[in-house]
Amino acid sequence: MTRRGLLLILSSPSGAGKSTLSRMLMAWDPTMRFSVSATTRKPRPGEVDGREYWFRSREAFQAMVDQGQMLEHAEVFGNFYGSPRAPVEAAMQAGTDTVFDIDWQGGQQVKQAMRGDVVSIFILPPSIAELDRRLRTRGQDSDEVIAGRMAKSRDEISHWAEYDYVLVNDDVERSFDNLKTILTAERLKRERQPQLSAFVRALNEEFEAR
Amino acid sequence: MTRRGLLLILSSPSGAGKSTLSRMLMAWDPTMRFSVSATTRKPRPGEVDGREYWFRSREAFQAMVDQGQMLEHAEVFGNFYGSPRAPVEAAMQAGTDTVFDIDWQGGQQVKQAMRGDVVSIFILPPSIAELDRRLRTRGQDSDEVIAGRMAKSRDEISHWAEYDYVLVNDDVERSFDNLKTILTAERLKRERQPQLSAFVRALNEEFEAR
Repeated sequence: MTRRGLLLILSSPSGAGKSTLSRMLMAWDPTMRFSVSATTRKPRPGEVDGREYWFRSREAFQAMVDQGQMLEHAEVFGNFYGSPRAPVEAAMQAGTDTVFDIDWQGGQQVKQAMRGDVVSIFILPPSIAELDRRLRTRGQDSDEVIAGRMAKSRDEISHWAEYDYVLVNDDVERSFDNLKTILTAERLKRERQPQLSAFVRALNEEFEAR
Repeated sequence: MTRRGLLLILSSPSGAGKSTLSRMLMAWDPTMRFSVSATTRKPRPGEVDGREYWFRSREAFQAMVDQGQMLEHAEVFGNFYGSPRAPVEAAMQAGTDTVFDIDWQGGQQVKQAMRGDVVSIFILPPSIAELDRRLRTRGQDSDEVIAGRMAKSRDEISHWAEYDYVLVNDDVERSFDNLKTILTAERLKRERQPQLSAFVRALNEEFEAR
């Protein structure tokens, strides 16, 4: 009997290291699936449909929402973002764990919908100065965009207390170790090991046969 | 602000490796405290009062129960066993984690009394043949005693599904790794990091000061 795949939600303000950490996690365990979000925002140079995002028109996005095909969705800076439901449910059935790189609004909705299958982790930056520095060294955004991101970051951070686990990302290797540790422990939870029922049945048969 | 110490309950049938694993864990993290049980059974050769058990008369044990000084207690094979409450509460206040090597009856009672502070792990043997072998190679018990233990083991195993985590101990090093992983992950849970409130307050002050 295969266990149901779990849903690992990573949230953090932009620049706290969430994307790096989720990439490291996927490289460490290639059986995991990354939930590619759909969005109505325009692709940036180099972004590929289905890799960074599923790029959709407002009409197509709204149709998916109306048909219940989004596990969660929210509007950020005038664009819509959402997690398509079907691939997540298929992964869960197949016992594949899914990683979500989504904000607190998405995290709340997925948690509401999928309760016991969700493991949520909030990643905090070591300081706002460091967050600012990381955003600036990306070098592709204007001061105005960065100011907007910082306001959004503050809002995002205000939701840290809704998460199961919290990491302060002052050292990416240590945070990665902690991320692996959390995932490994969660997989050892009783309800995530459905094969144990048959195993204990076999132990009981061994008792009977003595 | 110090976090409250957590209560790590290890249960398993006799011979499944629980005592070895709890010793390994205490050696790995010497800040942890082992909850020494009180018992009315007679000391065996080599056992020291306060190390293996607190050896108490029935009257003294019953007085502790009557005065609410036992966190849990139960009768096994005509003897009473219990976990004194005061050292556990002192450890929790001091932020020290306590390891309990107790059976399902004790585990249930501690969980009832201490809910959110409890992390419970059940250790299963790889097979009953192996359990039997481990009990026999200890070499200090009669066949009759071993038969009694096996009956108790079966009863103990029947409670595996009441625990948060389950380990099948077919390799003690791997089980030890898993045990450390569980403890490390549990310490990363949001509610076990009370220092985060002040940390996030400082982040907000940094936002304000920009």
